[in-house]
Amino acid sequence: MIILSRSEIEALIDLDSGLSALEAAYIAASDGRAVMPPVGYLAFADKDGDCHIKYGHIAGDPTFVVKIAAGFYGNPAIGLPTSNGVMLAFSAQTGVLEAILLDEGFLTDLRTGLGGAIATRALCRPDARRVAIVGAGIQARWQVRCLQQAMPETQLSFSVWARSEDKARETVSVLHSEGIDVTVSTDLERLCRDAEIIITTTPSREPLIRDVWIQPGTHITAIGADAPGKQELETALVVRADRRICDSLEQSLDHGEFSTAFRAREISAENCIELGAVLAGKGAGRVRPGEITIADLTGVAVQDIAIANSVLNADRRFRTV
Amino acid sequence: MIILSRSEIEALIDLDSGLSALEAAYIAASDGRAVMPPVGYLAFADKDGDCHIKYGHIAGDPTFVVKIAAGFYGNPAIGLPTSNGVMLAFSAQTGVLEAILLDEGFLTDLRTGLGGAIATRALCRPDARRVAIVGAGIQARWQVRCLQQAMPETQLSFSVWARSEDKARETVSVLHSEGIDVTVSTDLERLCRDAEIIITTTPSREPLIRDVWIQPGTHITAIGADAPGKQELETALVVRADRRICDSLEQSLDHGEFSTAFRAREISAENCIELGAVLAGKGAGRVRPGEITIADLTGVAVQDIAIANSVLNADRRFRTV
Repeated sequence: MIILSRSEIEALIDLDSGLSALEAAYIAASDGRAVMPPVGYLAFADKDGDCHIKYGHIAGDPTFVVKIAAGFYGNPAIGLPTSNGVMLAFSAQTGVLEAILLDEGFLTDLRTGLGGAIATRALCRPDARRVAIVGAGIQARWQVRCLQQAMPETQLSFSVWARSEDKARETVSVLHSEGIDVTVSTDLERLCRDAEIIITTTPSREPLIRDVWIQPGTHITAIGADAPGKQELETALVVRADRRICDSLEQSLDHGEFSTAFRAREISAENCIELGAVLAGKGAGRVRPGEITIADLTGVAVQDIAIANSVLNADRRFRTV
Repeated sequence: MIILSRSEIEALIDLDSGLSALEAAYIAASDGRAVMPPVGYLAFADKDGDCHIKYGHIAGDPTFVVKIAAGFYGNPAIGLPTSNGVMLAFSAQTGVLEAILLDEGFLTDLRTGLGGAIATRALCRPDARRVAIVGAGIQARWQVRCLQQAMPETQLSFSVWARSEDKARETVSVLHSEGIDVTVSTDLERLCRDAEIIITTTPSREPLIRDVWIQPGTHITAIGADAPGKQELETALVVRADRRICDSLEQSLDHGEFSTAFRAREISAENCIELGAVLAGKGAGRVRPGEITIADLTGVAVQDIAIANSVLNADRRFRTV
């Protein structure tokens, strides 16, 4: 059995392999080749904490993966990170535990970033350059890094807005030091009006992005809404969009960015399509340059399966060198 | 973070502490102090394998526990054990992963044995001595060991019947070498007619134990039926029993030993009671010596929580010595 620490995992990770693995996993999920039972959930109300258990198997994969991810939102006050987590890989032939990835939530952050990049690349206009990043947390950074990696031929320029300007400055400073073309924005409306790509990464419970700000041809990837009550985009914008794409129809319509419009019967499931179907060429993503496209990503177990296998494959290659 | 191997766990385990911990956990569950979400499940039909994820938290406990247990029934043919598993303990204060118990299924076997012993001790006649063990697998052995430990003042004599007489002989030989008073039985009917306690541990899909064989005053602990389609006791016997006790009403009536009688509307949920309520003195177990009592144990996450905490407490004591 293999046990890898967070730093070992960080050293093994290769974003390009991760992008390929996740793309294949989204396609497998939409093809019906992935088994992803309902997510397990435990709440710790007195500690403002919770735990999600995501698990599943892609037909033909030699392993199945169980991910346990905890989020305790009072942790920063006592000097601990909010997120914790571990991924376990078992043989799908024998049930033997093959690997423990002590990633402390790193792989969840990363696979969320990679998922966003895959959706954004697949759906933005080919000539899109100006990327608005809304929010300045860990996930904002990963969305930027992964999109930059996913579109190496494109001269993307990023601008980051956050409620806390200090936090936006800090994130911009970190990304800038990594060689990324990125600035701070202090005006969310102007940022959105100017953007060709908007990526939202906040835990907002009320819409931040107004419908009237969004120009034809814009692509939006919405990452934040992953639980009931969360919403980053004005409902009118979700309704107005020409194309609505999500990683999981079931989740997006239940508790993702599309759920408010869906419950109000302003959109139906037939007006949405899964990312895997778009990637497989079985459904339409962006058809015309002037369309507004929205990708809502709530997070699916195939991402965890794919990223865990990507790490394990890298580890195997490393060991056999 | 602590990582314990199977042999380290075996060295730390103390059956008496396990019995106390499990008894408290059953009571907590029936008191509503335990959160036990539905069990996660993955099937691997082509390999005759499956994986169960049990997890939960007892209010006030410093940790919460996630158990992943795999059973691949073709493994023995390739020289591997059927069961595999791992238990993870996380802080319920911060979500930090505190311990990985690489028990390979050992703790599941043990906690199942301890649960059976607790039910049997609570429900058998005080003067019961003759114990029939039906089945001769790993769980048969644990039921014997744990009951012996749970009733140290009582001169129990065990007799083991199994479809394979060779397997029964092997199990008897192992238990005998551990100092247990145990013999082989080759006649299931006679064994059951003579017994004061019957413990069934088979994966049978059709009733093995006939109603007419069972004498007034007998207690039966049924361990085998833990999934739809499994049944060890004739339905008429379940209906005839004076007291029906189970670890989880929801599970027992859905896919445990009481489910066939329940679906046939021959018993109702009000005719059954949870073991925790009996242990807490909130409900009746055995009331009169002549009653037939049946305990149906399908397995609950609080057992896993309790046994994991019992190991971790022992480890802490060991480290501070």
